[in-house]
Amino acid sequence: MEVKLPTFNSVFSIDCVIFGFEAGELKILLIERNEEPYKDWLALPGYIVEQDESIDDAAERILYELTGLRDLHMQQFHTFGEVNRHPQGRVITVAYYALIRINGQKELRPITQYARKAFWHPVNELPKLAFDHSEIFKTGFNKLRRRLNYQPIAFELLPEKFTLTQLQSLYEAVLNKKLDKRNFRKKMLSYGFLKELDEKQKGVSYRAAKLYKFDRRKYSKIFQNELNLENKGKVI
Amino acid sequence: MEVKLPTFNSVFSIDCVIFGFEAGELKILLIERNEEPYKDWLALPGYIVEQDESIDDAAERILYELTGLRDLHMQQFHTFGEVNRHPQGRVITVAYYALIRINGQKELRPITQYARKAFWHPVNELPKLAFDHSEIFKTGFNKLRRRLNYQPIAFELLPEKFTLTQLQSLYEAVLNKKLDKRNFRKKMLSYGFLKELDEKQKGVSYRAAKLYKFDRRKYSKIFQNELNLENKGKVI
Repeated sequence: MEVKLPTFNSVFSIDCVIFGFEAGELKILLIERNEEPYKDWLALPGYIVEQDESIDDAAERILYELTGLRDLHMQQFHTFGEVNRHPQGRVITVAYYALIRINGQKELRPITQYARKAFWHPVNELPKLAFDHSEIFKTGFNKLRRRLNYQPIAFELLPEKFTLTQLQSLYEAVLNKKLDKRNFRKKMLSYGFLKELDEKQKGVSYRAAKLYKFDRRKYSKIFQNELNLENKGKVI
Repeated sequence: MEVKLPTFNSVFSIDCVIFGFEAGELKILLIERNEEPYKDWLALPGYIVEQDESIDDAAERILYELTGLRDLHMQQFHTFGEVNRHPQGRVITVAYYALIRINGQKELRPITQYARKAFWHPVNELPKLAFDHSEIFKTGFNKLRRRLNYQPIAFELLPEKFTLTQLQSLYEAVLNKKLDKRNFRKKMLSYGFLKELDEKQKGVSYRAAKLYKFDRRKYSKIFQNELNLENKGKVI
């Protein structure tokens, strides 16, 4: 018995959930689509995978074409394959996510005609998104929350030098709850991966706060030991 | 500008990494394929997603058809989309995994003609597998290792009543290293989710060990608090 692969009338796509943190708010990247029948729809940056590119390459290309951003460290987090998730046919989409520092990023500017504009939007008041993009966002956000517990991701969202208040407001934004200031500081400092700098916040008229840096070497050490039975526990 | 989805000459598939634990050994489920050009190849249970089924449904159907197993709690863990991963064309595969107790499972018996047989194989001495299935297995195994640290998965692999020696040998098999017996027991018992039973191991001629059960209520409580800053730490 010899079998040939069937030819399917279906496509793969990529959708990107790109998280950024700015002025105490957690945001994601959205685009306004430009082509019929989706003109004016708000959506996650996403498009179709070409026949001759890997899905990882496609994710990079698509994000770049729709937003002008590139060289992000994107990771896939889930594949969405419900039969009717796309009105035009069978589209199975691989969702990727990344975390970036919004400050210091270049201006957003779509290269392709499929997006009219790209912009940051706070995760707290997201509008209705195209297709199942609200669900894709939620799945990505839950993943981010879980990862915050056992991976050094907070520091990908913060500027290189940050105050403990900034760090706490990031945790509060991701976990969506207030944390006790004293406990938070005590716990965070106890791990030993925050390096106190000889510098203070600038541009603040009084009570400038101490700046901290993330000690990558110490951090890696903790995470190398993640599987170690003797490990002291989760990061937070 | 109106766009139509292109028609691609490509397919989606599912591949399954099913872990089981038996007699101190961690195993996965393999099939021997039956059709040309793959006759006799050893592979993960996997096949093509139909046009009118979701990927979750496809995973259940495919595993059942190739092995006779069903009603497993499968979860997708990664999608593999390199351009040349399949010799017959573009195939993007969504990989699923599950953990089961081998004892108590029915006999393995392929329903479809695409598999000649299905069998359990120790993960330690895996033969060469078809396509990129060795890589898919490795990715799944790493995922299992990481999850063992912060999710109650050990108990899905053990019989309902187990000895601490069995629990330790499972951790050792997954982490692939010897653990100190005293430390392991102390730490495991300290969490409070192991319930000591008034029963001992049967069929052992002397020094029968105490049996334990997993206290699901306590366990859930710990994992509900996973995101809690006051949380005491990882499970292991």
